[in-house]
Amino acid sequence: MGLESIPVVTQSASDGLTGNAAAVLREIAARLESLAKEGQSGIIDLGAMPLSPADKAWLADKLGQGEVEINLELDGPSHVRETRYAGVWWLLHHNPQGAVTGEFIEITRIPELVLAHPADIISGSESLNFLIDDLC
Amino acid sequence: MGLESIPVVTQSASDGLTGNAAAVLREIAARLESLAKEGQSGIIDLGAMPLSPADKAWLADKLGQGEVEINLELDGPSHVRETRYAGVWWLLHHNPQGAVTGEFIEITRIPELVLAHPADIISGSESLNFLIDDLC
Repeated sequence: MGLESIPVVTQSASDGLTGNAAAVLREIAARLESLAKEGQSGIIDLGAMPLSPADKAWLADKLGQGEVEINLELDGPSHVRETRYAGVWWLLHHNPQGAVTGEFIEITRIPELVLAHPADIISGSESLNFLIDDLC
Repeated sequence: MGLESIPVVTQSASDGLTGNAAAVLREIAARLESLAKEGQSGIIDLGAMPLSPADKAWLADKLGQGEVEINLELDGPSHVRETRYAGVWWLLHHNPQGAVTGEFIEITRIPELVLAHPADIISGSESLNFLIDDLC
């Protein structure tokens, strides 16, 4: 068996990297270019990717930390942080027991779940008007 | 001097409330109705209002705490929290030394400063493409 038949992945595997993180980073870069040039948003489900813990750490290191950090309480705590690259957001969702239920990269001006929902604004407006009526 | 000539404000002043907080709350309610009905965003500069510390505490209590909390690092730390009323956000800005430089109520789906800026998305896309070229 010649050296040339040894798969490259064997060499990378020593640090736990599979090579998939670099592929995901290229996908993020392609989608960020779409956002920059055409305003097209995108999403990548990290849970659907064959990423090792080392891959994920590598990806987090390459994307770095940006200026915005968001905590949400939905059906459990969610955490959204902007990476060093404006428009690239890392989302982590948990159930009420604290277990991770989803991990995504969103490429967009702001992840949709952070926006106040129109139906909630309407019911909030009604509630606030009721509160004010009670003050009088 | 009859009882009827005693101004109501004297009675309120004992708890530090000036009556201005209720006026601000009515203004927020009116603007939230505009957002609900016409999609019109609004902003109220709390620093420009004659509010006592008690007024501000009363207003914070009435508006309550919502599901979203945002920390930003701009020219100093900023804190944005959604109130109990979806679309009503309380913003607090500090300078790098930690002193408050601005306090606002924004009535909108998401305060503009949280959005990734198009120019930053373009430069971020270029930087990420450079990073990927260096990986090869």
